[in-house]
Amino acid sequence: MLRNDQLAEWDRENFFHASTHLAQHARGETPTRIITTGSGVYIEDRDGTRLLDAFAGLYCVNAGYGQSEITDAIADQARELAYYHAYAGHGTEASVTLAKMVIERAPANMSKVYFGLSGSDANETNIKLVWYYNNILNRPQKKKIISRWRGYHGSGLMTGSLTGLDLFHKKFDLPLSHVLHTQAPYYYHRADLDMDEAAFTAHCAAELEALIAREGADTIAAFIGEPVLGTGGIVPPPAGYWDAIQAVLRKHDILLIVDEVVTGFGRLGTPFGSDYYGLEPDLMTIAKGLTSAYAPLSGSIVSDKMWKVLEQGTDENGAFGHGWTYSAHPIGAAAGVANLNLIDKLGLVANAEKMGAYLLAALQDALGTHPHVGDIRGAGLLCAVEFVEDRDARAFFDPARKINVQVVAQMLQNGIIARAMPQGDIVGFAPPFCLTQSEADKIVAATKDAVQAVLG
Amino acid sequence: MLRNDQLAEWDRENFFHASTHLAQHARGETPTRIITTGSGVYIEDRDGTRLLDAFAGLYCVNAGYGQSEITDAIADQARELAYYHAYAGHGTEASVTLAKMVIERAPANMSKVYFGLSGSDANETNIKLVWYYNNILNRPQKKKIISRWRGYHGSGLMTGSLTGLDLFHKKFDLPLSHVLHTQAPYYYHRADLDMDEAAFTAHCAAELEALIAREGADTIAAFIGEPVLGTGGIVPPPAGYWDAIQAVLRKHDILLIVDEVVTGFGRLGTPFGSDYYGLEPDLMTIAKGLTSAYAPLSGSIVSDKMWKVLEQGTDENGAFGHGWTYSAHPIGAAAGVANLNLIDKLGLVANAEKMGAYLLAALQDALGTHPHVGDIRGAGLLCAVEFVEDRDARAFFDPARKINVQVVAQMLQNGIIARAMPQGDIVGFAPPFCLTQSEADKIVAATKDAVQAVLG
Repeated sequence: MLRNDQLAEWDRENFFHASTHLAQHARGETPTRIITTGSGVYIEDRDGTRLLDAFAGLYCVNAGYGQSEITDAIADQARELAYYHAYAGHGTEASVTLAKMVIERAPANMSKVYFGLSGSDANETNIKLVWYYNNILNRPQKKKIISRWRGYHGSGLMTGSLTGLDLFHKKFDLPLSHVLHTQAPYYYHRADLDMDEAAFTAHCAAELEALIAREGADTIAAFIGEPVLGTGGIVPPPAGYWDAIQAVLRKHDILLIVDEVVTGFGRLGTPFGSDYYGLEPDLMTIAKGLTSAYAPLSGSIVSDKMWKVLEQGTDENGAFGHGWTYSAHPIGAAAGVANLNLIDKLGLVANAEKMGAYLLAALQDALGTHPHVGDIRGAGLLCAVEFVEDRDARAFFDPARKINVQVVAQMLQNGIIARAMPQGDIVGFAPPFCLTQSEADKIVAATKDAVQAVLG
Repeated sequence: MLRNDQLAEWDRENFFHASTHLAQHARGETPTRIITTGSGVYIEDRDGTRLLDAFAGLYCVNAGYGQSEITDAIADQARELAYYHAYAGHGTEASVTLAKMVIERAPANMSKVYFGLSGSDANETNIKLVWYYNNILNRPQKKKIISRWRGYHGSGLMTGSLTGLDLFHKKFDLPLSHVLHTQAPYYYHRADLDMDEAAFTAHCAAELEALIAREGADTIAAFIGEPVLGTGGIVPPPAGYWDAIQAVLRKHDILLIVDEVVTGFGRLGTPFGSDYYGLEPDLMTIAKGLTSAYAPLSGSIVSDKMWKVLEQGTDENGAFGHGWTYSAHPIGAAAGVANLNLIDKLGLVANAEKMGAYLLAALQDALGTHPHVGDIRGAGLLCAVEFVEDRDARAFFDPARKINVQVVAQMLQNGIIARAMPQGDIVGFAPPFCLTQSEADKIVAATKDAVQAVLG
């Protein structure tokens, strides 16, 4: 085994980390943390520190760490066949089986699944599908995509454009043209504090209607949204939101892309966020929960309505010119099959629902009256605490104080990983589905302690 | 084990394959081929058919199939830690070690590597890096990217735009703005048959100069190219090409992105295509050969010159807002470390060089005088045969006849997988590096038989 300091040096010299302050890290001002193993909700680093991961990696290790059913499936698949491509009708038993399992679990109107690697590349595929669809239907002008401020749909050029967060736009010349943003369904951040939830929902729908009217419905191809805003702040929508939005989209013949990267496969206690909110997607984006992150795999699930047009398109134009070398990678597919079977076998979706309700209630009990806690919200096993300087006036802290970063750092000292969301003083929680009550209690206790340490 | 017909039915009902005629496949007019295992240069399907894969999957299984050093590393990593993220300075022993191994192998001026999943997403990262770089340098107008016709750089929206092939543009509204295409360095397809190679190289450089002059050098950020055109036809450039192109780029302060997805880690018998042609990249794209496709992993290698500016950027703007959940995935990293070590241990790069020269010479011996073989070309273990209707007049066949598709289908009947390249009557070869002389002989014999069967 290598010495830690040697790895840290190699890291600083060679490794360009995601979402990192590159200069500070290269200068050694931020630590290298080498993770070595994990079990259940816990991970361990090379210094022997054991941490309760209340964010499941990046809300993706839904089944929990160290599940041998999944790792055995990966090992077996690697030995049988680590790779062959999925072009031109090729597959493996695992990839074909997983395609069937995904469509069985998806809403009834969904038809086929295209497998990619990441949520970002699946949304990239989705935009290509939407444009192709409208070209086949001879609507060449119907191409713009509406996303929401605070939506998260990836960090590529198009997908980072769909994302509605400053961090992913600034200095990257994003968003690209073709992408429009509308009101975030973020009731706690409403401009008019006197608005009730129903009025705010009506406001969101009216804003969308107004945007469509300004641009022309014949120029708008699709609307993309997460059932619950994820990286934008972990925000369940106000009551009635999705019904109101879907009514607008149907009226203007605008496709609905539901980004289920975070919510898919049980995070909300239902198979998909679409089930939770009664959504009828034309396309669904899946990734994280599909394999519990044991291997990279994502997917674009295509509805019957769109699939028929794609078939027409290939009859008219020949093979569909889209593919990643690693589409439906055998190891990802094997991990996906084992993961979905394990989640069923252990009843983890029901546990996510139960423990999500428990965790949210416990956070509300512990912090609901704290003068600097403005909002505690959640759906399923996905929740957040938002801090404010003045609770009654809903006055936010100066972002430069990075209150949520301080809270999360304090929690880490106490052995709990939570996530400081990138925009707003929000701490997010999305533990593995195998969370127990005593583990939830530890998360809540550490949160309460950290809030007291930072904010009194 | 499932019956084949059941899997075929599931496949048609649920699976959206890459680069496939969707309607024909759904109607059952094209076969489902389920691959079960592989060893060395051979794969096997569920019907028990054993095939010599002379294209190494999609020129990616460089180490050959069934290499237990790599599959054991994957199995071990899965059991120790299948996943943790690489955000904010996190890593694993495997990912940090692989970063060091990549930078050690790369040209001396390369500094850091960002790990992604696919060649497409790595090129997506590259364009973000280029735009960010010029924003930090206060050159907000210097953003366009020049690619070549017949270049292949992915099939996303931006990366499919960089790709210069009709199949990837048609009906997808690509290329996007920001992307310009210049002359393909394809001597055999030169417009003026009287031009010699040196004159054609000068012509390519002059075309590039003219494009830059038309657009304004202050609007051009980068030039992207594969050392040898890959999916565009497997075409080594004419003599002196890269020296001439690099001189133009330096003159106009245009960054060079070298797409080494196909050529990286030994395909040309050198560590990188950049070594083969004396390239000095500002960014390098790596994928396939990094793991021999045993697990999805790609990378963007950043030069010292660019890295300094990225550091300045984060000092001025904070954390770099880019990341995939599966960046530097532990299983991909473990596969990469084991793969590169195995390639060194077995001397596979030297074998690729030796067997590449042998295969090319044997194809030339077998088919060099055939009246419908116009060109036989290659570099390292990457070569192609191109068919023509009239050899002396260099008159191509009507594309509707799909001569190369017929040749490849005939070869498959004889147990050999070669690739019908998507644009032009070209059959491509890129076998695993462990190819033996007798296996090369089988490829050549099958090619010769198939050419005779199709073209007489």
